[in-house]
Amino acid sequence: MQQDIPPAPAFADILAARERLAPHAHRTPVLTSRSFDALAGAQVFFKCETFQRGGAFKFRGAMNAVLSLPAEVRARGVVAYSSGNHAQGLAYAAKLAGVPAAIVMPQDAPALKVAATRGYGAEVVSYDRYTESREEIGAALAAGRGAALIPPFDHPDVIAGQGTATAELLEETGPLDALFVPLGGGGLLAGAGIAAQAMAPGCQVFGVEPEAGNDGQMSLAKGEIVGIAVPRSIADGAIVTSLGRCTFPVIRQTVAGIETASDAELVAMMGFFAERMKLYVEPTGCLGAAAVLKRAADLQGKRVGVILSGGNVDLARFAQLVLEAREAEA
Amino acid sequence: MQQDIPPAPAFADILAARERLAPHAHRTPVLTSRSFDALAGAQVFFKCETFQRGGAFKFRGAMNAVLSLPAEVRARGVVAYSSGNHAQGLAYAAKLAGVPAAIVMPQDAPALKVAATRGYGAEVVSYDRYTESREEIGAALAAGRGAALIPPFDHPDVIAGQGTATAELLEETGPLDALFVPLGGGGLLAGAGIAAQAMAPGCQVFGVEPEAGNDGQMSLAKGEIVGIAVPRSIADGAIVTSLGRCTFPVIRQTVAGIETASDAELVAMMGFFAERMKLYVEPTGCLGAAAVLKRAADLQGKRVGVILSGGNVDLARFAQLVLEAREAEA
Repeated sequence: MQQDIPPAPAFADILAARERLAPHAHRTPVLTSRSFDALAGAQVFFKCETFQRGGAFKFRGAMNAVLSLPAEVRARGVVAYSSGNHAQGLAYAAKLAGVPAAIVMPQDAPALKVAATRGYGAEVVSYDRYTESREEIGAALAAGRGAALIPPFDHPDVIAGQGTATAELLEETGPLDALFVPLGGGGLLAGAGIAAQAMAPGCQVFGVEPEAGNDGQMSLAKGEIVGIAVPRSIADGAIVTSLGRCTFPVIRQTVAGIETASDAELVAMMGFFAERMKLYVEPTGCLGAAAVLKRAADLQGKRVGVILSGGNVDLARFAQLVLEAREAEA
Repeated sequence: MQQDIPPAPAFADILAARERLAPHAHRTPVLTSRSFDALAGAQVFFKCETFQRGGAFKFRGAMNAVLSLPAEVRARGVVAYSSGNHAQGLAYAAKLAGVPAAIVMPQDAPALKVAATRGYGAEVVSYDRYTESREEIGAALAAGRGAALIPPFDHPDVIAGQGTATAELLEETGPLDALFVPLGGGGLLAGAGIAAQAMAPGCQVFGVEPEAGNDGQMSLAKGEIVGIAVPRSIADGAIVTSLGRCTFPVIRQTVAGIETASDAELVAMMGFFAERMKLYVEPTGCLGAAAVLKRAADLQGKRVGVILSGGNVDLARFAQLVLEAREAEA
């Protein structure tokens, strides 16, 4: 069944989302680092969504979507499928809004994310991401309960909510020359594109996806959505198989290009963030910064924004990754 | 040779230090955590000096001391002895003020701290902390150059600078019921005591030192400074052998009590800060939070401040400590 593509949100929807989220979401800090600036040759501003509720920007889109539901729909609850952070974001949003939530999560989702989702009072339904379709499981679950399905990225209210992160960043920094945004399904990037176009028209917005899953890059090149097999990358928040039908047109219209980063580059950034900036960032959250260092030659003397999308990584996994990388270096 | 005890700073000196530091020091964020509040049964505000310049509160005291020197003294440079964070703080301050700095550091100081100190352009002079006296080496070095010796804690300008962290915290939170502050030589704690007494007279201020080196606790009990052998603790920022002659009287007058935390408790807090609050905190920086959890029974429903004093810990060491602790748990 071919469904209509939902309309893309406008900048006004991001402003409305800001009002809606103001009593609930954190206004996360924007941090800078002289060491990173020296490496990049640019003046870089990090929007730290690691400190957002639920540990990632996902709370913004989820909460905006929940609050935008008609009251009678909301009362029947919400359902989501998610590789992790959207699950926690929606579970947290549902808890604050006082509605039941069921989350479809892959069996191999990080234990920390599953535990946190349950900790917010949500029901967790597991599936095998290499053989089953989370979209089908989620849709059946929602239909059975009369609950609202809140997709992780391909929804105008979700995109508008994610756009508030960029709106806050630009409000604090003023116009930027470039902005680097982690890219999975494209909710954060589409929101960033809309916000930047309105608030800083000269700002070039770049998506950054894992090297192992560069479907976004291929999609932009081809001018249509290109699907890929489930990529294997440590950036578990960005291993989707395609952009969305709602996010892709926005990205095509507002984004200057899409970069990639390897797992090794992400682990190196995790180490830098911890040791030098005292920040605990998950692999997906490191995509933007890794791309800035790769593109440094083009960014000399520029004012650059980077969204650190989240910090939800198991401590044992974090420690293993950075130790292995340090031992390989030595 | 018995020297006069320098006079304790007054609250007015902390206010003057704020003015002096305003163009140089970061106003660090105050973060909260629902998970920590649930564990503690209290409403807890974390003053994140991990994000201070140089990665620790020490920059405040060092910069205030450098800026308070007469111009002709400052021009001859500054000298310090430090187990780590004061070294970086002073090296950074000297760099910003454009004066040469020589830092006496123990041979076994964390590599990250030595590298960072050199990175700020300071000269590093090594010594063996189990056999040599850093005070004597520092004094000789300063005398030879006509440079000003800036001690790590026992100096009114240093104490006044450290007090600005507490002043900022209380300005942001309003009055608190209790405040927990890491305790080494007592500069941060004395500054906290003076600021709290003036800004929140009902606030009980507690110092927290490593269990292995509870000289502060013994000193308060005895009513005079008690010296101990160099304690062995992972809290390398707090392993001094005694309180200072300038800090002790202030602490005695303004502090409600001194708590301790074990190395295992500090490592558990490091893991919590990373995984739950996305903060990278060094062992010494975890002292206050560890004590809050131990004293939770007395803090139910209270508004509590905690100073996270710094985040300067080698990444490999951080990873090893938290991995070992997790494996011991499992």
